[in-house]
Formats: sequence, structure tokens, C-alpha cells
Amino acid sequence: MKKLLIALGGNAIKKNYEKGTYEEQIKNIDVACEQIAELSNQGYKIVITHGNGPQVGDLAIQSENSLDLVPPQPLSVLGAMTQGQIGYMIQQSIKNKLKNKDKNVVTVVTQVLVNDKDEDFKNPTKPVGPFFDEATAKTLAEKQEWIVKKVTTEGEKTWRRVVPSPKPIKIIESQFIHDCIEKGSIIIAAGGGGIPVVFDKKGKLKGIDAVIDKDRSGSRLAIDIKVDIFLILTDIEYVMKNYGKKTQRPFRKLSVKQAKEYLNEGQFGLGSMAPKIEAACDFIEAGGELVIITSLEKALEAMEGKTGTNILR
Amino acid sequence: MKKLLIALGGNAIKKNYEKGTYEEQIKNIDVACEQIAELSNQGYKIVITHGNGPQVGDLAIQSENSLDLVPPQPLSVLGAMTQGQIGYMIQQSIKNKLKNKDKNVVTVVTQVLVNDKDEDFKNPTKPVGPFFDEATAKTLAEKQEWIVKKVTTEGEKTWRRVVPSPKPIKIIESQFIHDCIEKGSIIIAAGGGGIPVVFDKKGKLKGIDAVIDKDRSGSRLAIDIKVDIFLILTDIEYVMKNYGKKTQRPFRKLSVKQAKEYLNEGQFGLGSMAPKIEAACDFIEAGGELVIITSLEKALEAMEGKTGTNILR
Repeated sequence: MKKLLIALGGNAIKKNYEKGTYEEQIKNIDVACEQIAELSNQGYKIVITHGNGPQVGDLAIQSENSLDLVPPQPLSVLGAMTQGQIGYMIQQSIKNKLKNKDKNVVTVVTQVLVNDKDEDFKNPTKPVGPFFDEATAKTLAEKQEWIVKKVTTEGEKTWRRVVPSPKPIKIIESQFIHDCIEKGSIIIAAGGGGIPVVFDKKGKLKGIDAVIDKDRSGSRLAIDIKVDIFLILTDIEYVMKNYGKKTQRPFRKLSVKQAKEYLNEGQFGLGSMAPKIEAACDFIEAGGELVIITSLEKALEAMEGKTGTNILR
Repeated sequence: MKKLLIALGGNAIKKNYEKGTYEEQIKNIDVACEQIAELSNQGYKIVITHGNGPQVGDLAIQSENSLDLVPPQPLSVLGAMTQGQIGYMIQQSIKNKLKNKDKNVVTVVTQVLVNDKDEDFKNPTKPVGPFFDEATAKTLAEKQEWIVKKVTTEGEKTWRRVVPSPKPIKIIESQFIHDCIEKGSIIIAAGGGGIPVVFDKKGKLKGIDAVIDKDRSGSRLAIDIKVDIFLILTDIEYVMKNYGKKTQRPFRKLSVKQAKEYLNEGQFGLGSMAPKIEAACDFIEAGGELVIITSLEKALEAMEGKTGTNILR
């Protein structure tokens, strides 16, 4: 049976208009997991990855707000925490919905190797955590060895911490994840793009303050564990041409060549659709069979070929 | 080769006199993992469990301190977060120390089933999270549906939240964990006693606000996955008779029968050594071969029979 990597967008877990209570998050996760459990019931071998933007942001806010009470943990550790948090909710939700009650559904805490010479370490641009006013941002930056930047002109708090977003090189736990799905377990892995690690001078793994793009990590994982289909679930049913304009129309099928042309034209939103399309192209070029991009609610229909955008060789 | 469950006490990760910075925690974990990696090099099949008291306490403090900014997550979710946090540090540290670089070292987010009819739900006694003054405690209790109690007479803040500490019935992911160690992976599981879950009226798993004693969960896991040896690492080299008194002397060997007699005499500290002895007896009575209780630094020597307290049939 086909192997499937499913990438859940952050909005699958916390919608923009929500506060992010447990009840809200588990309700959203239940919607996604209903579809995932059905795909498992149909026989697909499944690995799941997910975003963690809102959750790691909340942890960062709590941490910054209690600096005099509790020592702040580095970003890599906050990422590990969200893998536990979100992984737990997903694994429980799927387990509750499976027909085969003996099937294992398990979250694997996942480290992702990056290169500390990656260009992005020289000029970090990925904003993380809360917004600050300039003075607070600069004080925190000095105290915690952060880089901070002005990221908006709206409101009073216009500064944020920025971190590098290096390319994922290797999923440290990929062999384990591969073997587990082959044996029929459903695995949740590389949440939030994975915990970024580098090799230090002695060749030992250590965490590093960075955020790996979750679509890139998803593609890396999909390639490393040799899945057939990479299913990217987001908030729209189709990738759109001229998105948001009167002339917008859905793409049903895109070849990698077409996708790259549209990428170069700037058709796809930076930080939203563009990284998904790049990840899709990487996966197909590395030998993957099919990428489907669609909305959470349409996962099953899209797997049946009835909707969603297909990206193929 | 023998299968081994290693239980790391909370003090293996954060010492009482430490603040709990990342640097402190990873340094402590490195000491423990040095010994664990050597046991793996010697050929033992290993599963590791650990405490999370200080870490979940810190998350609770951060959460309470930011209630107006971030919705608080339930205790079960905070537990899941610490499994990600501590599991990540342990899996990285062991991986860095193994001779066999291809060996998988993986944290499995673990749910532990409890009975919502457990006696402890009627009269919760396990204190969790920060201390409050009476007024704050009562306000929070009403707002968040907590039970709070006066737990000390010292200082101004004498109240804390209390939660049930029910008995673990089943490790939901035990079959998966069993299969992984049999195939040679090192697994970190059931951290902080595991995420407590119950079956709701529809027979679905759901998290519940409780804390499962980590020694009890360790014993449950050791029995469920059929390990041979249960190695409990804490802050003293031997279990002591008349601990803290002039007449104190170490136990080298204890039968289950002797251990229970001393338990009934009140020889062992409630909340510290007593639950370890109970967990040890449960494991041996369920067919386990040997329990060793010793200090973190003496793990290797104790496994060679040179030190530590052995509990046997």
C-alpha cells in the first residue's frame, strides 16, 4: 500500500481568530484527524508532520513574561515542548478514531540537522515570539543574546526577535520513523519543522536557536523515508493563479516545470504558498510520485482525485 | 541480552539548589547519559523513564503568570510538553555518547490510562505548580476549577493546587515501546509518570488533570514490556535503614517480603523512597528478576553488583 506524508498547517490546530485554548485546539485537531484516520482505515501507511507557530509563540510569551521567576529555555527546547504538546493531541485524536484499535499511533521527538554555515545564520529574518517596543526589544536582545528587528510599522510594539531559518539537511530519526511506518504504525514526527541541531566542533549534536520551515522539513522527511505521496493540508482547497484577484483560478495539475515558472513569476505568497510549492518540487525531483495541496476538510476527496492541486513530474 | 528499564529521578535533571537553566539541565543529563550509553555499549536493551516535577512546575508558573496573555493549557498538556523537552535532551545526549552511531535513540510521547473512579479523584493530595497566598489560590481555584489546599505554614504563600495521583492501569503505547527495544532502539517513554488519560463515556481517550507517580508508571511499564531489570537512579547510593539517624546503615539486599515489612514499619520516606520500594515490589511480584536502587553516578557499578540496593524475590 502507498506511503503518505501528511503535513498539517498551523491553522489546522489554531485558527487565526481563536485564542488557542485547549478545547479549540483539540476540536480543530479532531477535524483533521477524522480524515487521517479514514485514510489509515483505507490502508495507507501514514506519517504526519505539523506546524507549531502559534504554540511556540505562546510559550515564548509566557517565558518572556516570567523571566524573573523561571529561567527561559532556548528556542530549540520550546520547539521540543510543542512536539510533545501537539503530538500528544494528534496521537490521541487519531487513536480514538481508528477502526483497528491495536494500531500504534505515536509521536517521535525529532531532531533535524542543519548546517551552521547556512547563509541564513548571517542574516536571520524569521520573526518568532511576541512583539516588543524598541526599548524592551533591545534590552532583551542584550540580556539574552538575541537579534531583534523592527518588523512592522503598525501599533506600538513593532519589534520582534528574529532567528535564522536554515535548510534541513537530515532528519536524525528518519531511519526509525521509516521502519515504524513500514511495520504499520502511524508516526507523528518533525513537528514545527523539527528541533534544529548542528554538529559542534567535537562532532556532537547540539540544539541551535533557529526555526526550520516546516514545509521544507516535511519534504526532507518525505524524501528520506521514501513516501509515495506528500499531502499538504492548508486553508485553501486549491493552489490559485492570481490568488486574491478577480482573475484567480484554481490549478488542478502542475508539473514541476510549470510550478517553478509560476514561482519565479511571484505567483505564490512568500511565507505561505511559495515554501509549499518549493517543498513540493523538491520532493518530486527527488523521485516522489505525487504532491497534493488542498484544504484540511478535503483531504479524502483530494486523495480520491476529486479536488485539490496535484503537482507531478 | 537483558532488558533494562532505567528510571531517572527529577534530581537527575535539576538539582534542588539549581535554577533550572538549560545549561544546568543538559549538564546533569550528560552525567546520567554517560552511564546509560555505556550500558547500551555493553549490550543491554534499554528503555528510560524520567521525572518532570521541576520542569512541569516551571511551566505552571509561567502559565499562571500570563493568564491575561495566553490561555492556560491543562496539566495533561503541560506533562506532554515536558516529555518533549526532557526526552529531547536525553535522546540527544545518549546519541552523542554511543559507540554505535546508527543506533536509534527516540522519545515516544506516552499516555498512561488511569481509572476515573480511582480513590484519589475523591480527595486529591498531590501538590503541583506554584505556591499562592490564600486569596489568590481561591480566586484561581474558582476561575480554573481547581482544588487548592494549604500545604505549609511557612512563608506567606502557603497554598497550592492539589491534583489526584491515580494508579497507572495501562501504558497506551507499551506494545510499540516493547517492539522498538526488541529491535535494538533505545526508547525514552512515560516521562513524568506519563500523560494521564481516561476513557470517556463514549470509550474515547481523553486527558485528565492528575499526576501519576513516576515510580509507579515505571513499574507498570517495566511489567508491560517485560524487562528483566528495573534500575532506579536517585540521589543516594543505597536504600537506608534508619535513614538520617545515627544508626543508619545501607541495605545491600532485600527480599520483597523484607521490603514490605520495612515499608509497614514506616522505614521509607513517603513521597520519596516509599513509592520506589512499592514500585520495586510490584515489579518483582509480577515476575521481574531484579530491582536495583542506587545513585546516578553509581549505575554502572551497581549493574556489576558492586554497590546499590538489590530487591529480589
